[in-house]
Amino acid sequence: MTDLLALTAELVDVASESFAEAALVGRIEADLRAVPGLDVTRVGDNVVARTALGRAERVILAGHTDTVPAVDGNGRARIEGDTLWGVGSTDMKSGVAVMLDLARTVTAPAVDVTWVFYAREEVAAAHSGLGELVEKRPDLLAGDLAILGEPTDATVEAGCQGTLRAELTLVGARAHIARPWMGRNAIHRLADVLAAVAAVPERRPVLAGCEYREALQAVGVEGGVAGNVVPDRAMVTLNHRFAPDRTLEEAVAHVRATVAPFMGDGDAFEVVDAAPAAAPAVDHPLLARVIERHGLAVRAKLGWTDVARFAALGVPAANLGPGDATLAHSADERVARAPIETCHAVLSDLIG
Amino acid sequence: MTDLLALTAELVDVASESFAEAALVGRIEADLRAVPGLDVTRVGDNVVARTALGRAERVILAGHTDTVPAVDGNGRARIEGDTLWGVGSTDMKSGVAVMLDLARTVTAPAVDVTWVFYAREEVAAAHSGLGELVEKRPDLLAGDLAILGEPTDATVEAGCQGTLRAELTLVGARAHIARPWMGRNAIHRLADVLAAVAAVPERRPVLAGCEYREALQAVGVEGGVAGNVVPDRAMVTLNHRFAPDRTLEEAVAHVRATVAPFMGDGDAFEVVDAAPAAAPAVDHPLLARVIERHGLAVRAKLGWTDVARFAALGVPAANLGPGDATLAHSADERVARAPIETCHAVLSDLIG
Repeated sequence: MTDLLALTAELVDVASESFAEAALVGRIEADLRAVPGLDVTRVGDNVVARTALGRAERVILAGHTDTVPAVDGNGRARIEGDTLWGVGSTDMKSGVAVMLDLARTVTAPAVDVTWVFYAREEVAAAHSGLGELVEKRPDLLAGDLAILGEPTDATVEAGCQGTLRAELTLVGARAHIARPWMGRNAIHRLADVLAAVAAVPERRPVLAGCEYREALQAVGVEGGVAGNVVPDRAMVTLNHRFAPDRTLEEAVAHVRATVAPFMGDGDAFEVVDAAPAAAPAVDHPLLARVIERHGLAVRAKLGWTDVARFAALGVPAANLGPGDATLAHSADERVARAPIETCHAVLSDLIG
Repeated sequence: MTDLLALTAELVDVASESFAEAALVGRIEADLRAVPGLDVTRVGDNVVARTALGRAERVILAGHTDTVPAVDGNGRARIEGDTLWGVGSTDMKSGVAVMLDLARTVTAPAVDVTWVFYAREEVAAAHSGLGELVEKRPDLLAGDLAILGEPTDATVEAGCQGTLRAELTLVGARAHIARPWMGRNAIHRLADVLAAVAAVPERRPVLAGCEYREALQAVGVEGGVAGNVVPDRAMVTLNHRFAPDRTLEEAVAHVRATVAPFMGDGDAFEVVDAAPAAAPAVDHPLLARVIERHGLAVRAKLGWTDVARFAALGVPAANLGPGDATLAHSADERVARAPIETCHAVLSDLIG
């Protein structure tokens, strides 16, 4: 069996900071092209490899090739015992190593498999290589179930919550500060809005056994003209994370309804960023089977991840990968051998 | 009698934007030095001229020489009928013209008189030429009553309200926005503070027949770390204008008490700018006499003015000058002959 910690170290040593991933992508592409029976397509810095065995079902295994910038000299892999240090070791070259090894070795899977290695996940969503594939070659992403190898410490993080950001602008009327009754203070108007936002009861819906936990938070506030002027404008930015039992439209309506009682003429409510939630895929028979067989822990994914891109294409998706997400992006980023081997075994079983 | 509109036009034509006042100051200084019996002292771009007649009382007549920048070609004086257009015509070269003419013509006043022409009033208080005199030569500013020639449309604006700005910083704890219960949202904490500030009842004390009107307003607010982070810091800037029956210390205590119920560990309250109020001087016998004789309208001054610098030196002070303050600093700045002549008559009577 392949030494997966060593393979991960090999991949760590091919630097692949976002937008500078060509060397690693080239290496992966070459490996895939050497596998008989794989149909390999390169789209920009993304590589997709597909079996065409005529199976009843198709599983997509996907991972991103980029990393955040190296920090404090962690650009090179360092192994001590069964632990590997280095940027990307957790997020997510250990997951990529598992997938690359399975692509090379499981040549007659029980399902058809699509391997997706995509670029630029660690930067703004607009740059995502997976987004590029969705736009240019959605046909390559067709399938019945998708697993993303993001670090979950070999547990299943089911679906993901949706996210939206909205800017609420409240207007007023300027006046000299010595005569505030001639104006209307837009900053004072924030009081009711912020109180209402903070008072929204927390929804914790349970879907397919996974408890989600919604959030509505003010993440930015600004206002003011000058030290001696009653301000005529104040803005608050709200961030809402919503469970997969709500559509994006329903989530927007919820936020709007929360602030609507305090809005009037001239005020504005604008959604500036939004992405839908993804339903948990854990009741999909293929995934449910390996969860049971391997006794995998399952929990709701509260943050937004690329599983939502698959969900939007109609492909149920979940996160499952080695590595501890809390170590990602840190100078101390590292991964242990055991969860890498667990993931290898689970995914091998999933497609085997 | 001097044509005061023409004299004002002469002064408008000697440009004197803040920090570029030397030409006008030189002109005024030369005029004053030509008057027998005046003791003239120049301190930087400030000129002080004093009689020394051994009178029982001393009146200070003060005005600033600078203007805001010219706009839309109003840097040159233009007279049509009895109206003069031009930058500074209202604020306050008409007042300076009245004072300069009186200094040259009233050579045997009934009181001793100190004429103060000072620099840089139209910029930040820290640059004030009157502040420079207070610091370097407070002896030159001794007296029993001070009149500032700021534009009041020939009414008396009595004393002035004090002003203070304070910054209240509220802290929280950062967390990823998908897990807000791990943190504490500092922006949400603003809700109670802003509601309390907006709910402070308005005090309108009447002092010496003048009704003041206090104000407490949020003039700036800021907070936020990133679109996906529960913010750990929010700041609101408060501006308080307070009536002359409160000391600066009492005013600070009032603002602090308003926000104190909502403050906790790590929060900060800092006074960043403050100036005391000035009591109305309208009950001073010299001023009361001309108010009655000339039927002058009297009202409380709500904004802060340099009268407070005199009040701080123990000199009762009021604003009285020609010109409509609402026209100051506008492209359409102008002054009419009548209020200039009224002020001339009133001040002549005051010192005569």
